[in-house]
Amino acid sequence: MTSRLTLDELNGLSGEAFAAALSDVFEHAPWVAEAAAGQRPFATIAALHEAMMQAVRSAPREAQLAFLRGHPELGGKVARAGAMTAESVAEQGSLGLDRLSDAEFERFEALNGAYAARFGFPFIICVRRQTRDAILNEFERRSQLPPEAEFATALQEIGHITRLRLVAKVDGPGAPKTDGRLSTHVLDTVSGKPAAGVQVRLYEVGASARALVTETVTNQDGRTDRPLIGGQPLRCGTYELEFAIGDYFRRIGVAAPAPAFLEIVPLRFGIAEPEGHYHVPLLATPWSYATYRGS
Amino acid sequence: MTSRLTLDELNGLSGEAFAAALSDVFEHAPWVAEAAAGQRPFATIAALHEAMMQAVRSAPREAQLAFLRGHPELGGKVARAGAMTAESVAEQGSLGLDRLSDAEFERFEALNGAYAARFGFPFIICVRRQTRDAILNEFERRSQLPPEAEFATALQEIGHITRLRLVAKVDGPGAPKTDGRLSTHVLDTVSGKPAAGVQVRLYEVGASARALVTETVTNQDGRTDRPLIGGQPLRCGTYELEFAIGDYFRRIGVAAPAPAFLEIVPLRFGIAEPEGHYHVPLLATPWSYATYRGS
Amino acid sequence: MTSRLTLDELNGLSGEAFAAALSDVFEHAPWVAEAAAGQRPFATIAALHEAMMQAVRSAPREAQLAFLRGHPELGGKVARAGAMTAESVAEQGSLGLDRLSDAEFERFEALNGAYAARFGFPFIICVRRQTRDAILNEFERRSQLPPEAEFATALQEIGHITRLRLVAKVDGPGAPKTDGRLSTHVLDTVSGKPAAGVQVRLYEVGASARALVTETVTNQDGRTDRPLIGGQPLRCGTYELEFAIGDYFRRIGVAAPAPAFLEIVPLRFGIAEPEGHYHVPLLATPWSYATYRGS
Amino acid sequence: MTSRLTLDELNGLSGEAFAAALSDVFEHAPWVAEAAAGQRPFATIAALHEAMMQAVRSAPREAQLAFLRGHPELGGKVARAGAMTAESVAEQGSLGLDRLSDAEFERFEALNGAYAARFGFPFIICVRRQTRDAILNEFERRSQLPPEAEFATALQEIGHITRLRLVAKVDGPGAPKTDGRLSTHVLDTVSGKPAAGVQVRLYEVGASARALVTETVTNQDGRTDRPLIGGQPLRCGTYELEFAIGDYFRRIGVAAPAPAFLEIVPLRFGIAEPEGHYHVPLLATPWSYATYRGS
Repeated sequence: MTSRLTLDELNGLSGEAFAAALSDVFEHAPWVAEAAAGQRPFATIAALHEAMMQAVRSAPREAQLAFLRGHPELGGKVARAGAMTAESVAEQGSLGLDRLSDAEFERFEALNGAYAARFGFPFIICVRRQTRDAILNEFERRSQLPPEAEFATALQEIGHITRLRLVAKVDGPGAPKTDGRLSTHVLDTVSGKPAAGVQVRLYEVGASARALVTETVTNQDGRTDRPLIGGQPLRCGTYELEFAIGDYFRRIGVAAPAPAFLEIVPLRFGIAEPEGHYHVPLLATPWSYATYRGS
Repeated sequence: MTSRLTLDELNGLSGEAFAAALSDVFEHAPWVAEAAAGQRPFATIAALHEAMMQAVRSAPREAQLAFLRGHPELGGKVARAGAMTAESVAEQGSLGLDRLSDAEFERFEALNGAYAARFGFPFIICVRRQTRDAILNEFERRSQLPPEAEFATALQEIGHITRLRLVAKVDGPGAPKTDGRLSTHVLDTVSGKPAAGVQVRLYEVGASARALVTETVTNQDGRTDRPLIGGQPLRCGTYELEFAIGDYFRRIGVAAPAPAFLEIVPLRFGIAEPEGHYHVPLLATPWSYATYRGS
Repeated sequence: MTSRLTLDELNGLSGEAFAAALSDVFEHAPWVAEAAAGQRPFATIAALHEAMMQAVRSAPREAQLAFLRGHPELGGKVARAGAMTAESVAEQGSLGLDRLSDAEFERFEALNGAYAARFGFPFIICVRRQTRDAILNEFERRSQLPPEAEFATALQEIGHITRLRLVAKVDGPGAPKTDGRLSTHVLDTVSGKPAAGVQVRLYEVGASARALVTETVTNQDGRTDRPLIGGQPLRCGTYELEFAIGDYFRRIGVAAPAPAFLEIVPLRFGIAEPEGHYHVPLLATPWSYATYRGS
Repeated sequence: MTSRLTLDELNGLSGEAFAAALSDVFEHAPWVAEAAAGQRPFATIAALHEAMMQAVRSAPREAQLAFLRGHPELGGKVARAGAMTAESVAEQGSLGLDRLSDAEFERFEALNGAYAARFGFPFIICVRRQTRDAILNEFERRSQLPPEAEFATALQEIGHITRLRLVAKVDGPGAPKTDGRLSTHVLDTVSGKPAAGVQVRLYEVGASARALVTETVTNQDGRTDRPLIGGQPLRCGTYELEFAIGDYFRRIGVAAPAPAFLEIVPLRFGIAEPEGHYHVPLLATPWSYATYRGS
């Protein structure tokens, strides 16, 4: 990322310079920033973003369609051919959508083809708010929507994409919320104390495989020093937390048979709110446990 | 199984016929049944088994060793060569130990070789009380035991093996307990009612893979019509129950996001008591659950 | 209770004898049994009861009103004066409604007066399905109902009262369900075992006091040898179970501070289904517990 | 409270002025502060307190006894006669020990008499760390201790009393921890959200009665705006939290019978660590709940 602009600076630029400065937020659509320029000064980054989205929503249908059509296909030929803006490259790359296997590439090609034929613009989704599996699920689900509903969904996704881009580019007050948080807490209800030193692994669970996201150990308060995920949107999708509770209870001297009734406790859960806080605690004895979405 | 004898019949046979009738309970060791014959009549099958085990435990060390040495290797050359009694063939076959991959065969061969060199008799374990993974874990663990401790463990396993064989062969009062039970119960704590129609899958979890053991659906009482496992020993090892709780709550009309917080709830647990009752219930809402070893 | 009749005997009686035999089921209303007599034989007690209730429901309004007016006031002057049938005496006596304090007597008198003025018949409720507090709550709630709704409610209560009387009087197949069940189960989730020897007390909780209903101790399975309440309707109302879990954990040697975090665990719950099964278990460690309506 | 001294000021005073300034921390025992004066400067208030306690612990037995004997009786004649220091008056008054009923006065007199006869000094306890019931329990328990154990316990209580007095009097770094915290959190596990607007009542539970300590309502995060108890020691003893969960679920539109299964949920628990943090959350549906000592 290059050095960020401040909202004050943006408020003080000429209209032309303002539009140039924000040119890669709404790709290939300088008219969006131009429309927003006249409403300056903006008190918050959220207000700036909303003004630009309002420009998109109130544009003539032809301009909207041209704008949507300016987006690259997901994981498709265009992506492989490198014909994307730097932002799109980075975003798709974060999920490995630029490194698809041949089978995956075929699947995306088929979905892309059917989608474009039905709706007249490419499938647009804010990839930074989704796991790879969730994107494919959404692709299939949205391909079945009525055209007007899908058009509205595509504009919403534009909102998510550009909000993230704007927050990354502009410094200032009133930034819209773009990050979520996943946290945990392990309580040993035999001792009535936080369980310290419990190994915790977080996996992203896909249809056919699961990938380690992070691995850590609980501290004296039974929590992790840093959130399991934080400072970015949570990717919608399915996750599994694993807690090495068998090791913990052996270490503090609680007798257990071999194999223990509880050795590794898996908690599998779905995330549907990328900007939400998911607190997923574990209350455990060697013979029982409970979990819930907390706060 | 051929038709079973009754305990009464056994009590009435000549000593020779008695020993012949039980010849395949303690393999290649007719002296065990012969020693027990003199103590007839037995009031219970458990007493008969105990008398035979007592004969083994009080035999001279040389006879004990010869008896242990009469057992086939596990998953090894002898097994492949078919040099086992019919009982051993059936028992090893129940775990697929007669159909090992080449890599597995190598591993068993190495363990068998080291074990025999250290203890002077083959590794004996009651395979019907273990999962395949648990057998390998036990093989490695027991290979490290002091010789006297391992000798005692081998005799205990003989007790488990012959108890199962005796109960299969003889009908009568006072049969020793040889079967365990695994059951579940799903409670919907949003409604305060049993959760009916929940799909339940039970897997055996190995180091590298998991295998479906059974698949069923909860009835009106939130239970399964038959135990998940029953009428046989539970195999020591690690298991996972999966409950399709997301489908259940959608079906009864409880709103949930997509993906749901809880879609498939996995409960992973270890079984260490083959003749025990493991009741593993699930108390669930769309946002929380609890489990415990119940009774 | 005098010796019971069988359904077969009732089916075989003359119409007159049949009506006489059931004369104290529907008090002062021989026409109810007379109407049912013609539909004999009845295959089940439930069918017999339903036929008599159908006679009540299809009678002319005047007859219905006369029948309702034949019932004694609850806890009132009539009751004190002894002008009730033996059945009514026994039923009201079971709640102590024949031994009211002066303040309670005044309250019932006031409610009785207002109710009779509004609806034209005395307040009727099946006292054996209610706690004393619940009766007062119902008396106040129903005094506000629209007349038609309250008329229907009174007939429903007649159904509950006569069902209990009929089941007490007649032996035979297909008896309608008139009893509920309250049970518990204590699980020690530190040990993964039923908690044996836990003292359990059940209280009925009123607005101003609570009364001990029963006191018992859990058996080896963590249950009570007999249901806490069974073989009769559960009385609608509020209850509290108390479990002496502090004593239990000290006895099995689990360390605890003084005072223990959990000494007596109270579970307070309401019963709204007199013929239902309420299973109210306790899952406990010295530092945590959970309960739920189970099955 | 008069204006507080700073630790710096105390470090700079003459020895005499220092002892005078702290004269009412260790009642009638100026030698304690005098002994500590020579060890100045103190970097922390905790170090100052420890130096004074060390002076007490290393004093000759006669001086220790004279010091213990200088303390007023609890709730006794001396207290009634007004012969206490202002600090003792305030501390005993906080529990109403200066306003005993005649029966209570008799009981304290009997305990005081027996205790003094056995140990030769009055019963000393830090009343601000105890409920009234807990004091009586401790009085009876400690009256049975061997004299040496009880002598040590009395000195520990002196430590608790003087620590609180010193922290109230002196401002500065490194104050020893003297306050505890009781907090709660209500989670609605039907919705997977904090339960807002739940009425919460906290009672102190005595042998014969219970007294309302505080009453509040949960905020949007399911917590209370302020801790239920904070900024002071928690009084050892038994408490009950009551949550009006029935009202909550009706308000958010969850159907329930009348009476609801859960209307008021009581959680009864003991506090044994006056300077600890007791977090006592409630996870509830209309049909189930769980609690635990959290962190």
